Amino acid sequence: MSTSTNSKNTISSSKGPDPQTSIATERANSKFSPTEMHYFLEGSVERAELNKTMIQQMERDPILAASSKDYDLGKAEQRELTALKIARIAQYLENESFDDFNKRLSLVGVFDPQVGTRIGINLGLFLSCIRGNGTFEQLNYWAMMKETAYLKGIYGCFGMTELAHGSNVAGLETTATFDQENDEFVINTPHIGATKWWIGGAAHSATHCSVYARLIVHGQDYGVKTFVVPLRDSNHDLNPGITVGDIGAKMGRDGIDNGWIQFSNVRIPRFFMLQKFCKVTREGDVTLPPLEQLAYSALLGGRVMMVLDSFRTSARFSTIALRYAIGRRQFKSNSKNALETQLLDYPLHQRRLLPFLALSYVFSAGALKLESTITETLDELDSAVEAEDMGGIMKSIDAMKSLFIDSGSLKSTCTWLTADVIDQCRQACGGHGYSSYNGFGKAYNDWVVQCTWEGDNNVLALSIGKPIIKHIIAVLENDKKVKGSVSFLTDTKQFLDNKPVLTQKDDLKDPHKVLRAIEVAIIRLGVQAVNVLKANDGNFDFTGAESVAISKLKAHHYLLTEYLHRIDINENKALNPFLTTLAQLYTSSIVLEKFSGEFLAYSVIPTELAAYNGSTLIPELCQKIRPDVIALTDSFQLSDMMINSGIGQYDGNIYENYFNIVKKNNPEFNTKAPYTDKLVAMLNRGSKNDRERDEKSEASAAILSK
Amino acid sequence: MSTSTNSKNTISSSKGPDPQTSIATERANSKFSPTEMHYFLEGSVERAELNKTMIQQMERDPILAASSKDYDLGKAEQRELTALKIARIAQYLENESFDDFNKRLSLVGVFDPQVGTRIGINLGLFLSCIRGNGTFEQLNYWAMMKETAYLKGIYGCFGMTELAHGSNVAGLETTATFDQENDEFVINTPHIGATKWWIGGAAHSATHCSVYARLIVHGQDYGVKTFVVPLRDSNHDLNPGITVGDIGAKMGRDGIDNGWIQFSNVRIPRFFMLQKFCKVTREGDVTLPPLEQLAYSALLGGRVMMVLDSFRTSARFSTIALRYAIGRRQFKSNSKNALETQLLDYPLHQRRLLPFLALSYVFSAGALKLESTITETLDELDSAVEAEDMGGIMKSIDAMKSLFIDSGSLKSTCTWLTADVIDQCRQACGGHGYSSYNGFGKAYNDWVVQCTWEGDNNVLALSIGKPIIKHIIAVLENDKKVKGSVSFLTDTKQFLDNKPVLTQKDDLKDPHKVLRAIEVAIIRLGVQAVNVLKANDGNFDFTGAESVAISKLKAHHYLLTEYLHRIDINENKALNPFLTTLAQLYTSSIVLEKFSGEFLAYSVIPTELAAYNGSTLIPELCQKIRPDVIALTDSFQLSDMMINSGIGQYDGNIYENYFNIVKKNNPEFNTKAPYTDKLVAMLNRGSKNDRERDEKSEASAAILSK
Repeated sequence: MSTSTNSKNTISSSKGPDPQTSIATERANSKFSPTEMHYFLEGSVERAELNKTMIQQMERDPILAASSKDYDLGKAEQRELTALKIARIAQYLENESFDDFNKRLSLVGVFDPQVGTRIGINLGLFLSCIRGNGTFEQLNYWAMMKETAYLKGIYGCFGMTELAHGSNVAGLETTATFDQENDEFVINTPHIGATKWWIGGAAHSATHCSVYARLIVHGQDYGVKTFVVPLRDSNHDLNPGITVGDIGAKMGRDGIDNGWIQFSNVRIPRFFMLQKFCKVTREGDVTLPPLEQLAYSALLGGRVMMVLDSFRTSARFSTIALRYAIGRRQFKSNSKNALETQLLDYPLHQRRLLPFLALSYVFSAGALKLESTITETLDELDSAVEAEDMGGIMKSIDAMKSLFIDSGSLKSTCTWLTADVIDQCRQACGGHGYSSYNGFGKAYNDWVVQCTWEGDNNVLALSIGKPIIKHIIAVLENDKKVKGSVSFLTDTKQFLDNKPVLTQKDDLKDPHKVLRAIEVAIIRLGVQAVNVLKANDGNFDFTGAESVAISKLKAHHYLLTEYLHRIDINENKALNPFLTTLAQLYTSSIVLEKFSGEFLAYSVIPTELAAYNGSTLIPELCQKIRPDVIALTDSFQLSDMMINSGIGQYDGNIYENYFNIVKKNNPEFNTKAPYTDKLVAMLNRGSKNDRERDEKSEASAAILSK
Repeated sequence: MSTSTNSKNTISSSKGPDPQTSIATERANSKFSPTEMHYFLEGSVERAELNKTMIQQMERDPILAASSKDYDLGKAEQRELTALKIARIAQYLENESFDDFNKRLSLVGVFDPQVGTRIGINLGLFLSCIRGNGTFEQLNYWAMMKETAYLKGIYGCFGMTELAHGSNVAGLETTATFDQENDEFVINTPHIGATKWWIGGAAHSATHCSVYARLIVHGQDYGVKTFVVPLRDSNHDLNPGITVGDIGAKMGRDGIDNGWIQFSNVRIPRFFMLQKFCKVTREGDVTLPPLEQLAYSALLGGRVMMVLDSFRTSARFSTIALRYAIGRRQFKSNSKNALETQLLDYPLHQRRLLPFLALSYVFSAGALKLESTITETLDELDSAVEAEDMGGIMKSIDAMKSLFIDSGSLKSTCTWLTADVIDQCRQACGGHGYSSYNGFGKAYNDWVVQCTWEGDNNVLALSIGKPIIKHIIAVLENDKKVKGSVSFLTDTKQFLDNKPVLTQKDDLKDPHKVLRAIEVAIIRLGVQAVNVLKANDGNFDFTGAESVAISKLKAHHYLLTEYLHRIDINENKALNPFLTTLAQLYTSSIVLEKFSGEFLAYSVIPTELAAYNGSTLIPELCQKIRPDVIALTDSFQLSDMMINSGIGQYDGNIYENYFNIVKKNNPEFNTKAPYTDKLVAMLNRGSKNDRERDEKSEASAAILSK
């Protein structure tokens, strides 16, 4: 008998796990068309179809396509490949509009954020700096005549941060001293702390740098202004006076050649100063800009991109973790089941992942809205400047101030949330989430810098809280009527009573009521901050914790408002019930549960309702969404190339896909490592006594002790 | 005048930032001795001094010492270096006791967790599996006679998880079929899903594997048992029937050669089955163990190490971020200050970091307690087994069950918290936190697998919640008297009224009262879970969210209890005021604020007190701790080698230390990259029209259209 058992076992005939059937079955039961839903997510049929065309082009392009091989590349290889990809994508750029190219970059951001960033530093930050601070002639010269906009001729980097100054841009210490005799500026790094630091593209790519430096004219310091400084000639040799170094290894984005730059009295012509708003005449007379913040408008485009990235990246990792959770089975719920239970049928697992699916949907609406608003605002500002319409300029500046608040709170909140999405989705895939080939590790490491760069999230949040608190003071003291996206602050006095806003169970399911609850939470946090201010001589440094919470809630207010608006105007009504359930799960989990401390401490919601929300409503909503998960994730229309994850592919053949990648990238023929001889030498080493030449033995002791 | 300005600027004479003075000044004002505090943190003078001796040995050992170069190593280099370090550390092992060597490994875990793990798989998991499941003779044979315990002869790996089964160990599918004729077991991998997966050391290091496989005797499946299976011979060649592959790239810990293993009818002698509890006779009669969980006791040692790692790793990253926050200045608080403000003087920054400092102190107490408990419990079990004392065995099994709960809730809670510590400390260092040379990136990537391996944190938390909920049911239904570390559950009925436990502001400052509040929160969450159970036919799957919260609070209960006990018995009373303030900050931030949703929803604390806690108490405690931060971090006595971070060194010379590392590891003489020619070719490429051979020009169109 034992023999027959053995011979049966010699053929690998047992049935292995069959995850693809689970996924195929659920896909076959989709209640709506993922293609139609995709149109909703992308805002229009045209954009959705354009995306698909572009994705197909890129996944067939052997240089641009992501693959599992990317996960085995070291820093040097990543940098080279990124450069090759940029050279390749430049050819697409020559054949499409800038607008379409930007849409392409937003797709590249999902599967290769390093390429997106390394281009974005040049076309986004360097050129945006020139656009925001230079005259039209300056922009036209560098962008079009010198062909920078076509990834040609010049490659720009963005010289803002220094070793000792990041968030405090006004405190930068690089100097640009006007030399009237020669009609030049002299750019200088006075000490190690003023070394330009973290400059993306500086180490190897950039030929030019938009340098933020203190304008010094006739001994007077006019604060930080912007200058175009050539770094390398057309042979890519460094210009004299320029010292550039490689920042080296980073937590992620190793494909980007961040560098440091020191300027040793580098001379540039006077008209290399960007002079849309700030001007220095031949004689050294200085005209200052109407709003210093305008110098930072270069950062706005990046913020939009980060919110859009948040949408696409959350969509990608929700898709991976949810497909895995449907294909993977673990533990039998009861002994009658033939199969183990699908991970996603566990209520806890639903609760861990489905809020992120809902969040991705809500992100999409906010990202598209922010994208269109910024384009309109910058275009209006440009028109007003062109027409020398001072009234128009001031109006645009007001719009810019609003945009700084909205984009700042969204950038910080969305990038934080997305870091959490990647991390939690990874954990939800257990050990397999830790394999590079499933995508989480690289994505997380590449992602988290978004919480820091172009405005540290906490510092941004502080800067968003402050004007809101000031509005509240003005309402309390002078009944100010607040305008714009925080007009609800006008009602502050109505909500000083600390009465709950959500009072019935059904209120929790009404996203419009939750929207009001968010407003009241912001108001009460703001009023609390006013009390803190009073107790601390009006020093805003003490309102940090309240400001961060206000900023996050402000972002959710923006996202939810826009998402609800998009549902309202959606013409494909068949989708709306699904979209509304997602809104409910988003508000009950990502808003009400995540901020339950605030909602409860400020009595926006009574304790029983908070307990009901956590123990009953969220699980109910999760169960309602559960059957539609495959359709809802398919609706992101992310191709397998973009997913780039063994366990997350469309066909759901989790184990074979993943195993095949592991074997392809690590051929099992190599059963020994290059260092095996060292291990063997250790294991087979002689006894300690022999290696000690017997010197410490009793025999030796007998001799030595005599 | 402009000329003179220029010539002044030719020498880098401006004063740069001076962070070291800030740190030196604060260090000079220490109110207590960091050496004395170190004794408290390590539990004894002896251990503290032993640690320092060992650290000195290792930081002078060029093979073992960590350095900034580690941050530039690729996977192949890390693996080789890790192997070299193991061969080196084996020589220390030959010269010290196993107990001391374990203490050494716990130090290595701070600065090179890969070495710790790659050894721990062999000495910790492989040998612990033999110790936990094998007879004394089996243990003695493999550990001592074959010298595995000395990193000699045999190198073991731990073959538990499979591609399709991780958390559900009982569902593993590798088979061990008894062949009575030959008195052998036949080990087989029936299909791809049963491939042993993630096996640390399998790819290149291991000669043997402790395999978890289904015991099949005479056609009957007896469930998962443990077997020692040789993989490689003494020439390190794979044995026939063994297929081994490299798992490849991971998010972190690339220095560990995780692999996969397939067994194709591999034969081992019957007595290679570990048979302390489970026995198979020559005739195939099977004796089963008294508790299946005993097979997993191998995992307990790892859990202790992870809690100890949580202490040391949190200490390391708190130290880095806090030193940086004291040296770094940004923004002037008011125009009168000559210098910008130290980051740590911002209340928000204090609030972001100081709770982690307090947490590290509390971790230390819990880790040392768990360490001693596990040693005692396993020793008692061994003695009882040796004496064939069945009563003693059953008593030990009870103790083991308690230990599974305590260690499981601590492992999951502490590893999650530490991941958060590393991440938040990184963010608090802004862009510099993202540089590899400051340590955060590698540490985070190496760390987070602790949340997944040896018991996924969520699955562990579920398994901790369940028995607690069952206790509560027994109390509610039968007035059970609960024993052990959750004896407070006996009082469940007292707290059904939902009256607040903390009622006065001063209650929040009394850690003993907060301890009671934690107990009540656990009780009320448990009662809520009982309601959920009733609504779901007693299916525990639905109590996941409550179980996770209960498990976390249970861990805090353990940590706080032990920390307060350590303060009580501390003989150096001068330290106690500082220790107590840290306890208060820990309870107000890490416990009360982090769980404010639960404490409020279940009315353990009234809303006004929660608001007071967040807005007033936490900031007050932070300000109280602020002046002692350098002394409190110096007390961890982590050497610069262990810190291994440019911005975190003892002297506080942040910028120069960091800049020097960047330059040393990336010599700035290399101004061009190996791929520069490709970039130059892109930038200097001909016009699109030329490259299209003029075919799409109007001239061509004129010809072609005729």
